[in-house]
Amino acid sequence: MAMDFKNGTIEMAHGSGGRASAELIDKLFIKAFANPALAKKSDQAQLELSGKRIVMATDSHVISPLFFPGGDIGSLSVYGTVNDICMSGAKAMYLSAGFILEEGFPLADLKRIVESMAEAAHYCGVKIVTGDTKVVERGQADGCYINTTGIGELAEGLDLSPGHIRPGDKIILSGSIGDHGISILARRQHLNLDTSLISDAQSLHDLVESMIASGADLRCMRDPTRGGLAAILNELAQASGCSMQLQERAIPVKPEVNACAELLGLDPLYIANEGKLIAICSAQQAPELLAIMQNHPKGKDSAIIGEVLDTETRPVVELLTGFGGKRIVDWRYADPLPRIC
Amino acid sequence: MAMDFKNGTIEMAHGSGGRASAELIDKLFIKAFANPALAKKSDQAQLELSGKRIVMATDSHVISPLFFPGGDIGSLSVYGTVNDICMSGAKAMYLSAGFILEEGFPLADLKRIVESMAEAAHYCGVKIVTGDTKVVERGQADGCYINTTGIGELAEGLDLSPGHIRPGDKIILSGSIGDHGISILARRQHLNLDTSLISDAQSLHDLVESMIASGADLRCMRDPTRGGLAAILNELAQASGCSMQLQERAIPVKPEVNACAELLGLDPLYIANEGKLIAICSAQQAPELLAIMQNHPKGKDSAIIGEVLDTETRPVVELLTGFGGKRIVDWRYADPLPRIC
Repeated sequence: MAMDFKNGTIEMAHGSGGRASAELIDKLFIKAFANPALAKKSDQAQLELSGKRIVMATDSHVISPLFFPGGDIGSLSVYGTVNDICMSGAKAMYLSAGFILEEGFPLADLKRIVESMAEAAHYCGVKIVTGDTKVVERGQADGCYINTTGIGELAEGLDLSPGHIRPGDKIILSGSIGDHGISILARRQHLNLDTSLISDAQSLHDLVESMIASGADLRCMRDPTRGGLAAILNELAQASGCSMQLQERAIPVKPEVNACAELLGLDPLYIANEGKLIAICSAQQAPELLAIMQNHPKGKDSAIIGEVLDTETRPVVELLTGFGGKRIVDWRYADPLPRIC
Repeated sequence: MAMDFKNGTIEMAHGSGGRASAELIDKLFIKAFANPALAKKSDQAQLELSGKRIVMATDSHVISPLFFPGGDIGSLSVYGTVNDICMSGAKAMYLSAGFILEEGFPLADLKRIVESMAEAAHYCGVKIVTGDTKVVERGQADGCYINTTGIGELAEGLDLSPGHIRPGDKIILSGSIGDHGISILARRQHLNLDTSLISDAQSLHDLVESMIASGADLRCMRDPTRGGLAAILNELAQASGCSMQLQERAIPVKPEVNACAELLGLDPLYIANEGKLIAICSAQQAPELLAIMQNHPKGKDSAIIGEVLDTETRPVVELLTGFGGKRIVDWRYADPLPRIC
């Protein structure tokens, strides 16, 4: 679909992490802001400052509801940006916090959110060093939006990039998918599904540290947030020019997630996660890396879920189903669940 | 006024740059996020990364209207953060951009804003290297909010801080005050005052570069944005423990600003600027620094507007009026003009 910059308008899909978002980024932001760091289309930028390698990532959080089982917008806003930085292999160091608050927002809720951010930052070993607070009139925001931007240090010699992906590489997933999206959705006012599921929102900094320390031949990492596993693997397929093949049976999905997803007509492959990562690794070293991940509490359900294929045509993501069939995991225009982060 | 974290709510005043904002920062953010960089209460944080000195600043922009005479939310969001970085004496290098867009926002407006950001970034010599776009439902935002976060390099040995302010120091202002706030206010739908005034929104990076290059004995710099000159000088008085005395006749105010302010019952001292700075400098070197500033196109109307006093009691900001009187420039609870940045 061509973007209509004359008469078109912003749709929910443009913020979804699906194809619509990618198109907006390609056709507007990357074109206007033209620079090599942005053109890499990672969730973080790798930069040079005073001869040192640093990484910068930003995320605005508009999740609804603000408080959910397993977290809140405060902890999520810290983990989200810390995870984006970690996916490059860097160590997150400092965060900024920019609040947009709606007039009338309860101070008690703000305090709870800010204390949750402080606790999350302490846990991840990052400092929230600068901030900004804006207030807009009633009806011009939904309570509280938070932008966090982080910077981190990237070790000499470390270079993770989709460009390093090669046919034969293995795709490792650090745990079950869909927990975050489904647990948020189940708590939305109009649904209130009765499930004990909680969000997987967590910082991956320590899991990543142990993966990097192993010295394994990692090609790249990504956290499958908006758009889920499907969107992230499609992006990696595009960026690497390689197709990916997944084994449906190998992908961990909790029974509650499967049940809710089925009830709602959703596919867990497209549902957002906030505490999982995908690692792509040489076939040779994949078993060793898998063992290291499984040995870490945040990676205990890690599994090799597929591999990178040689592609002669357009790169695609395909799924070998549990019933022995094969289908394309397409890159959808929009995410089915808005405002899950 | 004590903050009521049990039953209180966010008021417009908490985002205004006046005393209410400062209280929220002190009693919530600084307490929760406890760290030395934040505790300095600057508009930017000075950090160490890989042994290098860097500066980080963040600003969320919620200005209304999005397009105004002399600028738009795009250029403002670049200049605002670049200026916050420059005030430390650092050179801004990289920016992130986080968009929160309202469903239905015209793509043509977004394109105009993004292109304006790109042009502003190019002009300031900074790169927009990473970004994020979120979309919220109609009625959950006011078109477009933009967070920019920037990082810059701070030269060895440079250390500007309100802590260096000494009695006898001179206060230099780089040009006329109130242009931004009044020009925005005059364009709000319910007013539509007929004035040719345009916002002073501009990047101060080049003016600051020439000031730093002069080697003058600068104590600190600040840009008088939200809350205007009055709020910023009160903050500096608090931070330094020194009173400040201003000469009303020495403060440049355009006749249109004075006329509009009078009509609306506003005091230009409290009105926001987006392209001016205050420099505090030793008395001895003030004339030389003033000449350097006046020699730069962005500082041609610079003036010494007052001096730092010895204080035995509580530090205050006082104004010697044009009629020979003296009054206290108090630190107001709220800014009279919401959403001017």
